[in-house]
Amino acid sequence: MAGRSNGASPMAPSSSVEAAANGGGGVDKGVDFANYFCTYAFLYHQKEMLSDRVRMDAYFNSVFQNKHHFQNKVVLDVGTGSGILAIWSAQAGARKVYAVEATKMADHARRLVEANGVADVVEVLEASIEDVDLPEKVDVIISEWMGYFLLRESMFDSVICARDRWLKPTGVMYPSHARMWIAPIRSGLGDQKMNDFESAMNDWRSFVAETDANYGVNMNVLTKAYKEENRKYYLKTSLWNNLHPNQIVGTPAIVKEIDCLTATIEEIREVTSNFSLNINVDRTRLSGFAGWFDVHFRGSLQNPATSEIELNTAPSAEDYTHWGQQVFLLHPPPRVNEGDAVIVSFSMRRSTENHRLMDVEFTCELQQSTGKRLPPVTSKFSIE
Amino acid sequence: MAGRSNGASPMAPSSSVEAAANGGGGVDKGVDFANYFCTYAFLYHQKEMLSDRVRMDAYFNSVFQNKHHFQNKVVLDVGTGSGILAIWSAQAGARKVYAVEATKMADHARRLVEANGVADVVEVLEASIEDVDLPEKVDVIISEWMGYFLLRESMFDSVICARDRWLKPTGVMYPSHARMWIAPIRSGLGDQKMNDFESAMNDWRSFVAETDANYGVNMNVLTKAYKEENRKYYLKTSLWNNLHPNQIVGTPAIVKEIDCLTATIEEIREVTSNFSLNINVDRTRLSGFAGWFDVHFRGSLQNPATSEIELNTAPSAEDYTHWGQQVFLLHPPPRVNEGDAVIVSFSMRRSTENHRLMDVEFTCELQQSTGKRLPPVTSKFSIE
Repeated sequence: MAGRSNGASPMAPSSSVEAAANGGGGVDKGVDFANYFCTYAFLYHQKEMLSDRVRMDAYFNSVFQNKHHFQNKVVLDVGTGSGILAIWSAQAGARKVYAVEATKMADHARRLVEANGVADVVEVLEASIEDVDLPEKVDVIISEWMGYFLLRESMFDSVICARDRWLKPTGVMYPSHARMWIAPIRSGLGDQKMNDFESAMNDWRSFVAETDANYGVNMNVLTKAYKEENRKYYLKTSLWNNLHPNQIVGTPAIVKEIDCLTATIEEIREVTSNFSLNINVDRTRLSGFAGWFDVHFRGSLQNPATSEIELNTAPSAEDYTHWGQQVFLLHPPPRVNEGDAVIVSFSMRRSTENHRLMDVEFTCELQQSTGKRLPPVTSKFSIE
Repeated sequence: MAGRSNGASPMAPSSSVEAAANGGGGVDKGVDFANYFCTYAFLYHQKEMLSDRVRMDAYFNSVFQNKHHFQNKVVLDVGTGSGILAIWSAQAGARKVYAVEATKMADHARRLVEANGVADVVEVLEASIEDVDLPEKVDVIISEWMGYFLLRESMFDSVICARDRWLKPTGVMYPSHARMWIAPIRSGLGDQKMNDFESAMNDWRSFVAETDANYGVNMNVLTKAYKEENRKYYLKTSLWNNLHPNQIVGTPAIVKEIDCLTATIEEIREVTSNFSLNINVDRTRLSGFAGWFDVHFRGSLQNPATSEIELNTAPSAEDYTHWGQQVFLLHPPPRVNEGDAVIVSFSMRRSTENHRLMDVEFTCELQQSTGKRLPPVTSKFSIE
């Protein structure tokens, strides 16, 4: 009995071992909390985020093209990580920056703040935002809180908490707005995952036959459970991917708009939306859907940005982000034509097993350009 | 800010993300417990173990070639998983088998027991062995508790607990004995990992230069910490590998012998050993050491096995096991010659961060065949 291997096992494709470790039922909140914060305590992971040019440019420009929001102001950076947003805030003229970080990364942030000559302005606090005590209210809350498809990880909860406790009534949120998008896509990933699934089941059938022949135990009673486990892993889990724009086969839809100044935890606990996607590519397959987000830096109504900045994680021919897009594959993928419409009822809610993960449901009805309407089909997914 | 990706990220080699998630400091026992049991709750992982022919043959033969240990006896299977050892025990003639399993795998075990017609003998109990209450003492404890390099995972603690609580004074342990081995090896992995490390540091240096140029923040103060983090990951973590016997360049040594009938938790909490390894290959490099284990099924002194079975995870040209060997790489690897001796002071203890993981230390002194003795060098590793 040996757990996860460090190295290449001839028997264990790492992705599945990974799935086993990640996808387990009954993960409690304490476990999730520790795993989450362990990951962010590594410089490797900070470097990955700091190397994302789309992300970096958007925050950099939002701060330095809107210095009036920072000059002589008090700023709170929620989940400062390496401290970069706090340092920029100081460089843009902030009077005081509170940089709150729950992991040991706080030590690194403190050293980076000192080395960059802003230690008189930036105070790094190693604490969770829920527990931290600040001596004053703040003018700006800046945070890079976005997870896969925006809400995976649920870090926005902490931003809401920070806002409700510490933002002045006249305060500004960075970013100020966020949107979730869904688009119909074509992709070779569907066939690939179906092949992986079928190959896993073929393996299982050989395994059952061999175990019976060699060891006198018939495992076939577990075939259904194995199929379920593998179906969930290969076919019912969303995939990270950086798509090319030509993989989008219809009009994208906005499924959620968030005003960061007013959003509540209740409002983001469950996202539901009904929308129609118009197919604009002829004779193709609807492999599934891609989900992504954008956020905007617009300041507030009373105190708008002079230069509005957008951070967009949509499929792009030039750029990609570490967020990529989340892909939800339909099995089997229906054939669609230009002029067809896909009428979707979408919901996304937190997994009861792990509150940072999400359960997603699509109910799709294909309305063909001929007028024919196919019966609705529901597909469920996990975002892991 | 987005955590672990499901899919191929152009920015994040999954091994390092993996390292980040696994190697974090301050992992508490509850977290570890949940991760551990999540993994074993997947049929995928059970199948992997049930497909390990070396493992399966050893347990199968040990039971069916020593039926006198099982006929009309009461058996306890510690961590039954899919239930295979419990089913074999019943098939070999046990009067009663208690099959204890802490994860939801217990449901699958119960169904497998029923489907294989031994439900009147095998009782599956979903419980941790520390909490379980049995109505009687047992004649045999059977368990497949071995982790990487034997003690990774520390499941043997549970077997000791079960033995002290439930084994009759005349009882028998399956397996009855275990040994840990160390051998000097040559391997291309050393160069590979050093290249990976150097390449990670080159990446970092470019990253520092670019972040300074593009975003006005100098990250160089974190270079030392990044180097430490990557050194630990690439150079100071043992690797899983199935070595070929011709990679062994000297005599293996036994570093620990365990009598499963008498071993105590204190005895395995820390393993220390001083030994000498005689190099028997000329003009080679000592890339490092391989660690593996074997276990034996010998019954007890009063009630010996009629057929002694061995389960061996040493490098083999014919077989491999899912345990493989743990490889500890020396940087730089010293040149050695036939007739040289490597005098090793070895210790292995549980990590203070995660009690299922191990901290390993080798202090090596090279005594050349010419009589020259090089000064001792200490290398520390984690088994993750």
